[in-house]
Amino acid sequence: MKKILIANRGEIAVRIIRACRELGIKSVAIYSQADAHSLHAKLADESICIGPAESKKSYLHIPAIIAAAEVSGADAIHPGYGFLSENAGFAEICRKCNITFIGPTPEQMRQLGEKVAARDVARKAGLPFLPGSKSAIESIDIAKKSAKEIGFPVILKASGGGGGRGMKIVHKDEDLEKAYFTCRQEAAAAFGNSEVYLEKYLENPRHVEIQIMADKHGNIVHLGERDCSVQRRHQKVIEEAPCNLLNEKERSRIGAYAVALAKEVGYHGAGTVEFLMDDDKNVYFMEMNTRIQVEHPVTEQITGIDLVRTQIQVAMGEALPFSQEDVKIKGHAIECRINAEDPKSFAPWPGKITAYSSPGGLGVRVDGFVYHGYTVVPYYDSMLTKLIVTADTRELAIKKMECALKEFIVDGIRTNIPFHLEVLKHPDFMQGKHSTRFLEKAGFVK
Amino acid sequence: MKKILIANRGEIAVRIIRACRELGIKSVAIYSQADAHSLHAKLADESICIGPAESKKSYLHIPAIIAAAEVSGADAIHPGYGFLSENAGFAEICRKCNITFIGPTPEQMRQLGEKVAARDVARKAGLPFLPGSKSAIESIDIAKKSAKEIGFPVILKASGGGGGRGMKIVHKDEDLEKAYFTCRQEAAAAFGNSEVYLEKYLENPRHVEIQIMADKHGNIVHLGERDCSVQRRHQKVIEEAPCNLLNEKERSRIGAYAVALAKEVGYHGAGTVEFLMDDDKNVYFMEMNTRIQVEHPVTEQITGIDLVRTQIQVAMGEALPFSQEDVKIKGHAIECRINAEDPKSFAPWPGKITAYSSPGGLGVRVDGFVYHGYTVVPYYDSMLTKLIVTADTRELAIKKMECALKEFIVDGIRTNIPFHLEVLKHPDFMQGKHSTRFLEKAGFVK
Repeated sequence: MKKILIANRGEIAVRIIRACRELGIKSVAIYSQADAHSLHAKLADESICIGPAESKKSYLHIPAIIAAAEVSGADAIHPGYGFLSENAGFAEICRKCNITFIGPTPEQMRQLGEKVAARDVARKAGLPFLPGSKSAIESIDIAKKSAKEIGFPVILKASGGGGGRGMKIVHKDEDLEKAYFTCRQEAAAAFGNSEVYLEKYLENPRHVEIQIMADKHGNIVHLGERDCSVQRRHQKVIEEAPCNLLNEKERSRIGAYAVALAKEVGYHGAGTVEFLMDDDKNVYFMEMNTRIQVEHPVTEQITGIDLVRTQIQVAMGEALPFSQEDVKIKGHAIECRINAEDPKSFAPWPGKITAYSSPGGLGVRVDGFVYHGYTVVPYYDSMLTKLIVTADTRELAIKKMECALKEFIVDGIRTNIPFHLEVLKHPDFMQGKHSTRFLEKAGFVK
Repeated sequence: MKKILIANRGEIAVRIIRACRELGIKSVAIYSQADAHSLHAKLADESICIGPAESKKSYLHIPAIIAAAEVSGADAIHPGYGFLSENAGFAEICRKCNITFIGPTPEQMRQLGEKVAARDVARKAGLPFLPGSKSAIESIDIAKKSAKEIGFPVILKASGGGGGRGMKIVHKDEDLEKAYFTCRQEAAAAFGNSEVYLEKYLENPRHVEIQIMADKHGNIVHLGERDCSVQRRHQKVIEEAPCNLLNEKERSRIGAYAVALAKEVGYHGAGTVEFLMDDDKNVYFMEMNTRIQVEHPVTEQITGIDLVRTQIQVAMGEALPFSQEDVKIKGHAIECRINAEDPKSFAPWPGKITAYSSPGGLGVRVDGFVYHGYTVVPYYDSMLTKLIVTADTRELAIKKMECALKEFIVDGIRTNIPFHLEVLKHPDFMQGKHSTRFLEKAGFVK
């Protein structure tokens, strides 16, 4: 592999460029007209403008991306996260064009990336499930019957959804019908697929996810868990590793589930298996993400393993450079997503950054793509920078994050730094007692 | 300890502010009129202007500093490195004013910080020495006799010197007299002390130094070595840890010397014992620095121990939070000092920074004090930022440093980034075969 095209933007594109450079592989950035000044377009060895700001016409525009790869002579494409990263059709086109897609095969993506299919595979692999429908709910009558069996509250989920989109919680029987039809309608509009399923709704779950990495020779290793329970409307805001509730034995148990799921389809590449965890530390399979995730750095920090580098290595056919026994967890890492948004209303806040100074020093990692003078554009996700800290204990990591956030200077736009500072000092978070409903319950989110 | 005044400027002041914040201790910055815009003056909880740019009138002006401590109610002073950090008289004044000096006692500083005295202590503690004079050379006749015994080449060193200043190499007998008087004269002018001593000059030595940390309860631990052989005129430019030539057993042997020296005077605080190492890995005591050093981060990176935090903790009377057995070395760290200077002539290059974007990502640490729009002033050391990278191996760390340097944007002034890039790719450095004379021999320094 000599040249990789990065089919993404922003911080993850920068992250991938760094991995390419360290491996001595040339990088090709693609960018929309709105992103000409993004650091990813500046740092890559080559940069190609592939269309206007609108994602459909650029970062989701498969012909333009393939053309860019062919023009630049890239022999591989790294899709990052979001955009086309879980699009099996895109991976298939890459294969047809003789371009290595850095990720699983289209078949693996279809088996694990699509929710109903993934649940079938997970069931075969023996993963634990929340009580719920085994397959798509085809009618309101089936929905009613199913909900009665499970017991309220239940949650309706769009098969094509993800990242918290396309979900409806139903607390009582009489609300089910309306919710069912609304959910189907919204799912059809948002994902082009009206299929929904139904499951038991936990009141105070933790979001625990296992990072896995697998090569093309059948080696599958898990790298421990991340706790991503701090969520606003199912969107992760603060992530950490390890989860403060788990010991080594519990970690191995959950990790083994994730490995079993990947094994079921002969998976290769990076992947994340997401679980909900109840008060008794029972976990329930939620879904699998067949790509690198935003929050991957916290795992890198506590394992010392470079996940993006490893993704590229296994895509080249190399064997995993570590075994399960080599994976040792040391310290505690926390990531705050620094977004350009109002810290109270969470409204996106694009604009020109008139001063920018990121924190530094021992245990502070900054993954970003903006700089002093950069104008944040309104077309994409509002995340500017991931601030990651690492310390010996969770308590020290929280303190270090607080200090790093206070040191962070971003002027000209609003950011959620003040919000993060409030969350960090909330007793539920400090004591590690927060569930995925923490932000709502604590009044941070109306 | 509730409030610490930082009697320093620039990156080390910022470093200490970070440690204070993480410990929940208030910080007081002092700054000269020229440094009002330095990040250290902006980040501290309180900032006090103590005089004009000239160091004598500000950062070396003891009455102004003590007044600032008293006005702000600081109960301790951290001296950083340089300036008053090795001034026993200053430490004594702090003691008289009931202010904790974060470092050793004035007596310890006198015994170990002053070169001739330190050699006497080191001899008692059984440290190995380069053949040389045991004490100050009082006359040219003694110098001649001594040089004859040792054999040329020899080196003359000012007792009051340090950091490579006040040294003269003499290759043959007929050059000795002139060198002796010049060295005395220069020493008197620069350090107010004309005392010089003489020792054997090694042709291809490595500079290897041991970091120690000691508490007030008699616990002394060494944290392995740093290799600082990349020097320009005895000024360190690139530092790394560990030294690529040493194994665990050799590390323990040299570390034990450093611990023995500290033990000899009941030392407490952070300290560094510097050695020259010859081709056969024999080490020879050079000097001890009774303070934190510029290059301390590389040790922090491979041991996971926060040295500045620990300095403060032991100054408060706490026992060391780790024992010798706890100190484990993992990975390889390299530090490049990013200076505002011409990369060819090394002439300082102050001026306004018109663009600044520091590298980030996995294994990249930035310790700095400047930002976009900051004007580098001409009054001090030209160092802007320390760029530190950490990776599994030396080879990977060199590659990571290369990538990070290429990512570093500093416009408006000149920096030594291009110089570092050249040094990193030189075969002698890449293979770890470089001595302290590497930069001269390789033609980087005329």
